Amino acid sequence: MPESMRGLKRSHRCQEVINAAIGSEVTVMGWVAKNRVKGGIIFLDLRDRSGILQIIFEEEHCGKEVFAKAQKLRAEFCVAIKGKLEKRSGAANEELATGHLEVEARELRILSESETPPFHIEEDSKTKEELRLKYRYLDLRRPDIQKNIIMRSRIATVVRRCLSELGFLEIETPTLIKSSPEGARDYLVPSRVHPGKFYALPQSPQLFKQLLMCSGYDRYFQLARCYRDEDLRADRQPEFTQIDMELSFVDVDDVIEVNELLIKTIFKEVLDVDVKLPIQRMSYAEAMERFGSDKPDLRFGMELKDISTVASKCGFSVFKDAVSAGGAVKGIIVSGQAGMPRKKIDALVEFAKGYGAKGLAYMAVENGGGVKSSFSKFLNESDINEIIDIMGAKEGDLMLFAADKKAICAQVLGALRVELAKELGLLNDREYEFVWITEFPLFEFSEEENRYKAVHHPFTMFMEEDMQYLESDPGRVRAKAYDIVLNGTEIGGGSVRIYQSDIQSKMFDILGLSKKEANERFGYLLEAFKYGVPPHAGLAYGFDRVVMLMAGAQSIRDVMAFPKVKDASDLMIEAPDSVEEKQLDELGLEIKNSR
Amino acid sequence: MPESMRGLKRSHRCQEVINAAIGSEVTVMGWVAKNRVKGGIIFLDLRDRSGILQIIFEEEHCGKEVFAKAQKLRAEFCVAIKGKLEKRSGAANEELATGHLEVEARELRILSESETPPFHIEEDSKTKEELRLKYRYLDLRRPDIQKNIIMRSRIATVVRRCLSELGFLEIETPTLIKSSPEGARDYLVPSRVHPGKFYALPQSPQLFKQLLMCSGYDRYFQLARCYRDEDLRADRQPEFTQIDMELSFVDVDDVIEVNELLIKTIFKEVLDVDVKLPIQRMSYAEAMERFGSDKPDLRFGMELKDISTVASKCGFSVFKDAVSAGGAVKGIIVSGQAGMPRKKIDALVEFAKGYGAKGLAYMAVENGGGVKSSFSKFLNESDINEIIDIMGAKEGDLMLFAADKKAICAQVLGALRVELAKELGLLNDREYEFVWITEFPLFEFSEEENRYKAVHHPFTMFMEEDMQYLESDPGRVRAKAYDIVLNGTEIGGGSVRIYQSDIQSKMFDILGLSKKEANERFGYLLEAFKYGVPPHAGLAYGFDRVVMLMAGAQSIRDVMAFPKVKDASDLMIEAPDSVEEKQLDELGLEIKNSR
Repeated sequence: MPESMRGLKRSHRCQEVINAAIGSEVTVMGWVAKNRVKGGIIFLDLRDRSGILQIIFEEEHCGKEVFAKAQKLRAEFCVAIKGKLEKRSGAANEELATGHLEVEARELRILSESETPPFHIEEDSKTKEELRLKYRYLDLRRPDIQKNIIMRSRIATVVRRCLSELGFLEIETPTLIKSSPEGARDYLVPSRVHPGKFYALPQSPQLFKQLLMCSGYDRYFQLARCYRDEDLRADRQPEFTQIDMELSFVDVDDVIEVNELLIKTIFKEVLDVDVKLPIQRMSYAEAMERFGSDKPDLRFGMELKDISTVASKCGFSVFKDAVSAGGAVKGIIVSGQAGMPRKKIDALVEFAKGYGAKGLAYMAVENGGGVKSSFSKFLNESDINEIIDIMGAKEGDLMLFAADKKAICAQVLGALRVELAKELGLLNDREYEFVWITEFPLFEFSEEENRYKAVHHPFTMFMEEDMQYLESDPGRVRAKAYDIVLNGTEIGGGSVRIYQSDIQSKMFDILGLSKKEANERFGYLLEAFKYGVPPHAGLAYGFDRVVMLMAGAQSIRDVMAFPKVKDASDLMIEAPDSVEEKQLDELGLEIKNSR
Repeated sequence: MPESMRGLKRSHRCQEVINAAIGSEVTVMGWVAKNRVKGGIIFLDLRDRSGILQIIFEEEHCGKEVFAKAQKLRAEFCVAIKGKLEKRSGAANEELATGHLEVEARELRILSESETPPFHIEEDSKTKEELRLKYRYLDLRRPDIQKNIIMRSRIATVVRRCLSELGFLEIETPTLIKSSPEGARDYLVPSRVHPGKFYALPQSPQLFKQLLMCSGYDRYFQLARCYRDEDLRADRQPEFTQIDMELSFVDVDDVIEVNELLIKTIFKEVLDVDVKLPIQRMSYAEAMERFGSDKPDLRFGMELKDISTVASKCGFSVFKDAVSAGGAVKGIIVSGQAGMPRKKIDALVEFAKGYGAKGLAYMAVENGGGVKSSFSKFLNESDINEIIDIMGAKEGDLMLFAADKKAICAQVLGALRVELAKELGLLNDREYEFVWITEFPLFEFSEEENRYKAVHHPFTMFMEEDMQYLESDPGRVRAKAYDIVLNGTEIGGGSVRIYQSDIQSKMFDILGLSKKEANERFGYLLEAFKYGVPPHAGLAYGFDRVVMLMAGAQSIRDVMAFPKVKDASDLMIEAPDSVEEKQLDELGLEIKNSR
């Protein structure tokens, strides 16, 4: 039978007793993490969100009745204990903050009992994720998950405080909005008041935050819930949280300045990590050239080198043909891996093929200076030396080359360098390398639709110096867009917006959007722009990803209290689910039988 | 043509120039609120979110070109102005913080022009709300709405900081959840991945916050978006925000203590109002008895008095019959209104009928001591004196009486006292009277279903001393539930939850809920309760209402950036709306033609 806590008041959380005086009386409440009997004494690890505290029951101190009750305790019972704080009589546990303390229990209340849980509550659980998510309320007791959830809350607190201090207002935008004609990934919400009509859940507050700028709010932010109905990739969730912001009367540098302050503050206050400012900036072109990625992981080198000059004149037709077809030959150095077994190289070739490569060529400078290569028989010694020279390879190094279209070379080698860094253990979770990627292309050409499309969105401003190419060579126009990248993950991105109606019209022209289409998609924003719109720019972070990287978690599911799985279902509450006919009737809907 | 702000950086918001030195150069950016020419000088009121600043253009200072440009300015143009901060040459405007200052413009950029807005941007706009909401981005420029939105942000910031300091973690709970079988007001969200199945949007995070207590998070809060699909009353919105919290290892007093600290902090920091602690508590029974309401407005008296003892023995059959039928006769005093015209009293009778009264009796003690009454002819003098005595009426007072079932008496007079207070101007927006209403009934009897239902929800704990009546007289059992009431509005409420499985089972019995039904509705929570659940309790505030009261706004629509109107539609974005057939196909849905 559960007991009441009447008459008891918790004096400390488990870990907080380190601030109490030895010999003082404390009252703690929590869950039985572990219990054992040794030498007639019952030892109990009590767990709450702050940590673990050792409790001991000795019959001579706590009395017969309490001792007998303590004997009934089992894992995950919820209990209240009153006792005397003492120095631990046995050896201290250096892994616990309370490892040199124990509470000598005098009083025990079993607030509620527990059945045997379906899995043991422990850090780094080996239990299958499906089972853990079904019993998420138990999984959430695990100290490592609790640490993540607590850190998430802490990060949100710091973000809000910092942005408030910088003059930002948190303004809530609606989540029952309108589906846009291109909103293929919108979640729809049928209306009962207007049967047959629908709201949509927002993929982001983009248009609302721009409207708030039109309304003069000047600096807006929001930790905004966003929604996307799509097949879920490893680290996507149907609902996710953005740190969303927009600023008026600013240009690129102002947005970057504010966000560097924000990043520095978060990392200092939450992780005690100093982020050096300014954060380096790299153009999109440079990032692709040097790292084969627009989100380069800068914790390690292994930069891409271009050997096209040698390749174009060498005897190896694969190289030669790639260059003469307008492509390139690029390579990376894998330090000290000259002796990599053939089998492993073959695995890398397979990996590269997954990214579109036709193959990979390799060359190793063996200790002693000999060269082993998949293509050296086609090359003369001077070409080989020139390649080694361009690559900067040393004895013991392995080189891997891709010969293809430039984009493919970048893609393949960009992925390969990250894969190799993982395999070779070059990635340190506790090292934080930031970089701003800037000067993104404004347009990308869609082969499918035979027209240019906006890379970011059609309100993104171009760099003034590229205005001349707007009509003649749109592909060359760079955007005032920026991504912030941490350890190879894009954690946020944004752009300066177009606020000039003449430029906006030209933009729609280039995108092949008629006035009518533009109005359908962005009507109220275009209308708002008629009444004095300020220059503005914004940025949004994927909050879940930020937390994941800061917590060193492997998945965003480990930093959300109640995540969904890949097929967008919630295993604990069993959603989505069928609903009653009556509910559908009221919405004026029926389910198609054909499915 | 819009100009660029390149080379200019805003130095101050309009109101911030009060911190700048006279004679210094400032750069301000904002909107033209007003402009006029007088004596060859152009006067311009520049508006940004901080306030208004007067700018003057004199040709001799700003030059011909700038002056000419300034002549083109019209209302709502967005401009950047660089100039010299000066003491105002004309008379100071005491209504403005910057009323003694002006900026002598040297440079002007027209960042963007404005068409003539559909209504004038001004405080206390007389423009129809429908038009203002259609152009909400313009409406949001109004200084009074901006003040509300800024205050809302400020309140949220203080709430979050205060709760963090009290050891609460903000934890986000999912909004794509499961529809409960009784979720008649759930918004449903069809799933594309699982055609024919639906999520529901949460009416509150109730079950999730209780699960978080099971998981040991101890003190949870969230500013949570909630949803309710219902016909909208005046002050409801389909999506609204709750300050939601839950605490473990606590009882009623602990929850109240924490929340009094929170309330005191918010009012002090945001309004500089001192809330005296402890806030008074009043039982539900007392509130109904004295004020005819479970959310009494304590800014004024006009308490209900019971004259049933006299009524039962008097010659007025309406009074006598009401009492003998088990009802009551109760009255209120309207001070100094003995001379209220008959027509006005008749209007009050009509008002009372709207609340279920069959009529209202009145009695006035006229100056000089004479009594005028609708029923005095049925009473002898001693009865009349006894009534005046019980009521405590003085010369010049009017008394109004209702004779009916006790609940009807309370309802009618409760509504009447508030209506009279409004009419007589007794309500001061800047006075804040709080009261905790406690000891609510746990059950209410549903005549319709011929069974008891939970007033709050079926997890609400009863007061230990009433346990004896659980089965014998459920209507008498009081709940450990509490509402916090401010100036006659319930701004929050909550309860201590049942955490004992035996008590929970008994509760379901009394509610006539079979085990199967209970599992269908609360399955995962009941499952979670098997594994050691802590005593816990919670509370939720209607955040929109809190802001409305603090801002002195008349409607929650005035404290939300993008509110919806009564039929739940958004007039600006025109949602809800029809969607493309293709979207419905993917969801496996079709619209019924019969509607």
